Amino acid sequence: MESVTALPPADPELRELLGTLSDLGSAAAVLGWDRETMMPPQGAEYRGEVMATLEQLAHRTLADPRVAQLTQRLAAAAQPGSVDAAIARVVARDHERAVCIPVELTAEIERASAAAIPAWAAAREASDFAAFQPHLERQVELRRDLAACFPDVAHPYDALLQPYEPGATTAGIRDVFATLRAGLVPLVEEIAQRPAPEPLPSGLPEAGQRTLALEAARALGFDERSWRLDDSTHPFSQSAGPRDQRVTARWDESDLSGLFAVMHEVGHSLYEEGVDPPLARTTLGSGVSMGIHESQSRLWENQVGRSRAFWSFWLPRAQELLPPLRGLDLDDVLRRINVVRPSLIRVEADEVTYALHVILRFELEVALIDGTLAVADLPAAWGELMVELLGVAVPDDRNGCLQDVHWAFGEFGYFPTYAIGNIVSAQLWRALRSAVPGVQESIAAGDCAPVRDWLREHVHRFGRRLDPPELLQQATGAALDPAPLLEDLRLKYAELYDLA
Amino acid sequence: MESVTALPPADPELRELLGTLSDLGSAAAVLGWDRETMMPPQGAEYRGEVMATLEQLAHRTLADPRVAQLTQRLAAAAQPGSVDAAIARVVARDHERAVCIPVELTAEIERASAAAIPAWAAAREASDFAAFQPHLERQVELRRDLAACFPDVAHPYDALLQPYEPGATTAGIRDVFATLRAGLVPLVEEIAQRPAPEPLPSGLPEAGQRTLALEAARALGFDERSWRLDDSTHPFSQSAGPRDQRVTARWDESDLSGLFAVMHEVGHSLYEEGVDPPLARTTLGSGVSMGIHESQSRLWENQVGRSRAFWSFWLPRAQELLPPLRGLDLDDVLRRINVVRPSLIRVEADEVTYALHVILRFELEVALIDGTLAVADLPAAWGELMVELLGVAVPDDRNGCLQDVHWAFGEFGYFPTYAIGNIVSAQLWRALRSAVPGVQESIAAGDCAPVRDWLREHVHRFGRRLDPPELLQQATGAALDPAPLLEDLRLKYAELYDLA
Repeated sequence: MESVTALPPADPELRELLGTLSDLGSAAAVLGWDRETMMPPQGAEYRGEVMATLEQLAHRTLADPRVAQLTQRLAAAAQPGSVDAAIARVVARDHERAVCIPVELTAEIERASAAAIPAWAAAREASDFAAFQPHLERQVELRRDLAACFPDVAHPYDALLQPYEPGATTAGIRDVFATLRAGLVPLVEEIAQRPAPEPLPSGLPEAGQRTLALEAARALGFDERSWRLDDSTHPFSQSAGPRDQRVTARWDESDLSGLFAVMHEVGHSLYEEGVDPPLARTTLGSGVSMGIHESQSRLWENQVGRSRAFWSFWLPRAQELLPPLRGLDLDDVLRRINVVRPSLIRVEADEVTYALHVILRFELEVALIDGTLAVADLPAAWGELMVELLGVAVPDDRNGCLQDVHWAFGEFGYFPTYAIGNIVSAQLWRALRSAVPGVQESIAAGDCAPVRDWLREHVHRFGRRLDPPELLQQATGAALDPAPLLEDLRLKYAELYDLA
Repeated sequence: MESVTALPPADPELRELLGTLSDLGSAAAVLGWDRETMMPPQGAEYRGEVMATLEQLAHRTLADPRVAQLTQRLAAAAQPGSVDAAIARVVARDHERAVCIPVELTAEIERASAAAIPAWAAAREASDFAAFQPHLERQVELRRDLAACFPDVAHPYDALLQPYEPGATTAGIRDVFATLRAGLVPLVEEIAQRPAPEPLPSGLPEAGQRTLALEAARALGFDERSWRLDDSTHPFSQSAGPRDQRVTARWDESDLSGLFAVMHEVGHSLYEEGVDPPLARTTLGSGVSMGIHESQSRLWENQVGRSRAFWSFWLPRAQELLPPLRGLDLDDVLRRINVVRPSLIRVEADEVTYALHVILRFELEVALIDGTLAVADLPAAWGELMVELLGVAVPDDRNGCLQDVHWAFGEFGYFPTYAIGNIVSAQLWRALRSAVPGVQESIAAGDCAPVRDWLREHVHRFGRRLDPPELLQQATGAALDPAPLLEDLRLKYAELYDLA
């Protein structure tokens, strides 16, 4: 019955089921993109209902008992290592997760989030943690209930990690973050002792920044026939289909954050675009984890976008488009786009201090979930850890534990993937440089295709076929390892800041 | 059990089911709007799959046997004339239609359309009817099969009319169109004997036209908090939710077609926006038929937009924004935006000749469906009827029976609703003027609220609660009647063209 030309999975009933799931995801992607970029403001309430319905339909489709039967049958028939075998494994896992979580708990989490998000916004505005505390207590309680649906895990937080980073464990991340922290804290201290570089000159016109970002994006792989660039309050990327990538940015005339956001988001979208076509509509046709996704965005933003090679090509064009840059030489610009300084706010942090913000959140949320930290003690614990990790005193909750929306959404387990992304980006960058010796020269000649092609071959094309540990092993020959990141950062900043 | 504050229908299971159906429709509306306005071109193929999946899910939801059970239960419990009674009636009818049509026939129709649409485009380009003929034969055959699913109707074409115009019959439309034709043909002939007015001066800048259209749209009810105006190849409107109306236009610097298209599309969207809020997410929360919908768009475009009252207010502003209009007085402009001349192409026709194009299509498609006209004889029949109705000789198929895409889509039964819209717009306009005596003065003072409010009260708020005949009877005290349209057109053009 199996046709060699048929798309996977071979079973037509399962194929239709997975197609429906994928299509509901694509519809939700367009609706989400539209909400942030196009929707008139009063459309929000109705849109919320429509998106909740799509999610419910997807949940119902995934939780259908036929999925278990069909994936078992597929697993029994599939060649080891085949696409069908991967589909059977990943879809069975998604199905099990969907059926393990009671529908009432999901509904309760939604209700709690709906109440917590505006409460968080008001509490942050007023810098009043006490106003948010009961909501956060409820979210922690519900996430503990959720974790309890998976009694086989070694640590309850492991259960929360899985949807964001399949295969990750609390113990494993703890080890890796300990090494990362041990390397980053002294590096940040050393850099902080050197004089800070001047910031970029302000008055960098938005129109020129947009043109520069679009031209750079094209060099990365952005193509108007299958991509869009729009404005939004917060930059994001959304894949509406393999040939329909949507990237957004915002612009600030006092820096180049718009350009770096575009490179970051294009990195995410190149990953989505680069998945092997036969995986489309199987639910395996997208990035495998938040950590691997973030490795793609970070690699383009940091390893490429903040590098000497990249700017040796793009500086003349930037100076044409942005007159205030005209007095600066390459070394000046590199120093000014690579300012490292401990600070209070994660989303404004530089590439060196960023991971320390993440380690702080990881440690606190693990402690909240395993019950060793009470929610009431969070502001104090936050303050202590900020001093330990970054040497920074937290003046108020707004600049402390109320700064991120994640916990109001009930998202526990998401934060560590940001630092995993940093770590993986350096591991991939090292493997890439060794496999493609002339890559820096290509970038310096304006040609980023060798980077994109290597990433496509070693990361993108697999979609969700390989779990992150397997993907990383295959692409770099190693497990998750912060050493390349620490070494590269030291090397780069030793040169920029004239360190010992 | 029934709570007075609960939204209809009282039954929560049915309410959820109808909410799902409505939400799938809203998602499809956003995806459709996005495809025509925002989507990068290479996204089209994937988008087609996603939209087909949403439609399938909606069909499956509507055809669920629970719908029959729940609507029967609701019908038995509902007060006559209540919202629940209307929901029971309309949803049961939708359900019956969904289950009467075999899934294989629907799939075959989709396949036939997928093949026919590009074939039609190529045949039109080459003006070669023979190349399209086998596709049209297949579409006619499939529509006859579809009609055969409803053996109780008096004429097979009646079955095709229902999804577009519930309650309409072939016999009824034939009678009404006979009267319409008898009135329009001599009026067109009389007008054609008078010298044609000059066209508008060209060089009307697009930016000024856009500003004018937006300001006029705001006077009609367009509000940026819950509406958008974008460009597209063909103007359309789409409702993504009660507070999320999307209108599109295109612009031509040689006329004011962009302004009239905006007024037309705003008319459709005001209808969608004006439905009573409790009908939202019941599947009754939208316009009841294509004919009533078209009455709304036509009324704003023609009875308001091409009137002396409207232009007596807007001409000074138009002259500020569009310099070539500055030499013209009000009478000039009214003549130039009301040029009536028989022509070959329906979509370019004026408000007098337009319905004759529609009558032609109605007569031909009824004959195709009941088998009295063979597809092979269509071009000749088209040519004869164009001479009879409009006195125009058809030079080739491109300007004849290949001009519209509808039949390639398999849409038979849609065309008559265009003329029904014209007829109803005049009936409503008469009722409105008699109920709101100062309405012309309000329009002449730039205030269109009295028009919108009357339409909301007598048309919009009912959504699909009342079928078109009942709605029309209630709003105007009459059945479908072409007399007001014929009388108003004669009065208007007698003055403009100085007829006897």
